[in-house]
Amino acid sequence: MNEKTYVFGHKNPDTDSICSSMVEEILDHKNGWNQVEARRLGNINKETQYVLDYLGLEAPKLLEKVEEGQEVLLVDHNEFSQSVEGIENAKILGVTDHHRIADFKTEAPLYYTAKPYGCTSTILFEEFKICGQPVEKTEAMLMLSAIISDTLLLKSPTTTEYDKKALAELAKIAEIDANIYGIEMLKAGTDLDDFSEEELINLDAKKSEKGNKKFVIAQVNTVSIEDVLNRKEGIEKAIWKEIENNNLQLFIFAITDILNSNTQIIALGEDTAVVEKGFEKKLEDNMAFLEGVVSRKKQILPIVDKNM
Amino acid sequence: MNEKTYVFGHKNPDTDSICSSMVEEILDHKNGWNQVEARRLGNINKETQYVLDYLGLEAPKLLEKVEEGQEVLLVDHNEFSQSVEGIENAKILGVTDHHRIADFKTEAPLYYTAKPYGCTSTILFEEFKICGQPVEKTEAMLMLSAIISDTLLLKSPTTTEYDKKALAELAKIAEIDANIYGIEMLKAGTDLDDFSEEELINLDAKKSEKGNKKFVIAQVNTVSIEDVLNRKEGIEKAIWKEIENNNLQLFIFAITDILNSNTQIIALGEDTAVVEKGFEKKLEDNMAFLEGVVSRKKQILPIVDKNM
Repeated sequence: MNEKTYVFGHKNPDTDSICSSMVEEILDHKNGWNQVEARRLGNINKETQYVLDYLGLEAPKLLEKVEEGQEVLLVDHNEFSQSVEGIENAKILGVTDHHRIADFKTEAPLYYTAKPYGCTSTILFEEFKICGQPVEKTEAMLMLSAIISDTLLLKSPTTTEYDKKALAELAKIAEIDANIYGIEMLKAGTDLDDFSEEELINLDAKKSEKGNKKFVIAQVNTVSIEDVLNRKEGIEKAIWKEIENNNLQLFIFAITDILNSNTQIIALGEDTAVVEKGFEKKLEDNMAFLEGVVSRKKQILPIVDKNM
Repeated sequence: MNEKTYVFGHKNPDTDSICSSMVEEILDHKNGWNQVEARRLGNINKETQYVLDYLGLEAPKLLEKVEEGQEVLLVDHNEFSQSVEGIENAKILGVTDHHRIADFKTEAPLYYTAKPYGCTSTILFEEFKICGQPVEKTEAMLMLSAIISDTLLLKSPTTTEYDKKALAELAKIAEIDANIYGIEMLKAGTDLDDFSEEELINLDAKKSEKGNKKFVIAQVNTVSIEDVLNRKEGIEKAIWKEIENNNLQLFIFAITDILNSNTQIIALGEDTAVVEKGFEKKLEDNMAFLEGVVSRKKQILPIVDKNM
């Protein structure tokens, strides 16, 4: 049996998933739990690469699947459909997360720390304090980057007072202007030119299930919705392929303007009525413009899940 | 809408479920969250009554079901099948628990604190420290009683270093000899004479599901297994009725000798082979003697669940 304990975030990892797994490794080592090692469940996105380059750090190694009985720690997710292949038979020792709980089950008692905050790293920052461990510059930058990413520089409605407080404290430890760094980081993340349409709709796609219905909500951040919509035809073709291959009832592609805090969605599949009912908007050309919507977790998923 | 937030443990409440809900009410009030009120999902058992009488406290009010959107906090359980009627449509704000996670799901992010300790109250004691709140004698006695009950005076294999440490600290605050108090409390709880066989098998019964199979593991503590077995015929009749009424595939009635740390089980239903396979024991007269077994959670449920 592998003696390492892997810690990882969700598939299609975002900055919180990567940074929080690296931070949990650091915290666990400080606490004397040395066999913990961070892993990633997919490619590093451009925003996260910006963070790693800035800090001169290597990304965690890729983890394709886990064997039965493998000890794991999850961060930034809990739903098995968003986790590593083989998770059903892994030994889940702990979870640190800020999402709803669903499609999750263990055989044995475990550590589970969830708080309804904007970012997993905000919870981890509190854990450093609870454990009485010092926060050094590297982990401060990792947590700060995760918070900026998940809360869109504290503008997302998922942002809590705890995230704001954590970001301020972390910026002080890291001796950095969070606004200047944050805007550069978010800009780096919204450069979508290199991606094919297939890649675009899978950059940050979360699969959910309700009853026997399967749906995906994918999200991209941009500074120009128009630029993304120039590729609408190709995007729709890629989505239909995804729907067919995975027997989905609904695919929502959310294009979020992070500077103005709005989202344009493209919705395809047999259950698009769910979107029209949930958001009280008629789809035109398969699209709807959702003013003030930026958070998939708080403003899109609950509405879709409820009406599904 | 009801403006109260209810906090409660599992159905067929044991001492941890009652005491931990009362303690969480106290802690939440100290933290300024005044609308939190403890409730109970069933009758107070004799052991818990001993604790309440000792402290001169009233039991929490009975909660039969909750309306849609009712704000609730769970302690000492998470599985919906062990919770209040209507839990599926309640708004679960938080969970504090020491069990595996299963049959649990929320629509929104929440507070969830689980640790693989012997008792929920041990986690709550740590929460007092994390919140910087003082522990007074009443809540010290409530937590101490819960720990003694769940760990059988630190003899159960579910006992962790954290439970031992908490019990020692709480006994100091309460200015009490935990051993003397604990043995009296456990003895009070094992007086089974007043109960009918129907009541006996429901005193502390936990329902679980695996796939489409439903099973119940009920447990009674005693200082004399023989006394309980004198009523075997009536107990088996009551179990068969329960199996029929609830379409169960298996009912395990565990009679635990808390002084000598052994358990005699009676297993009935179409899936008793699960028990024989799991414990590598042939059932004789529907019975098996499990040496050293005292913990349903750690020594019975995982084995049954795995072989089901």
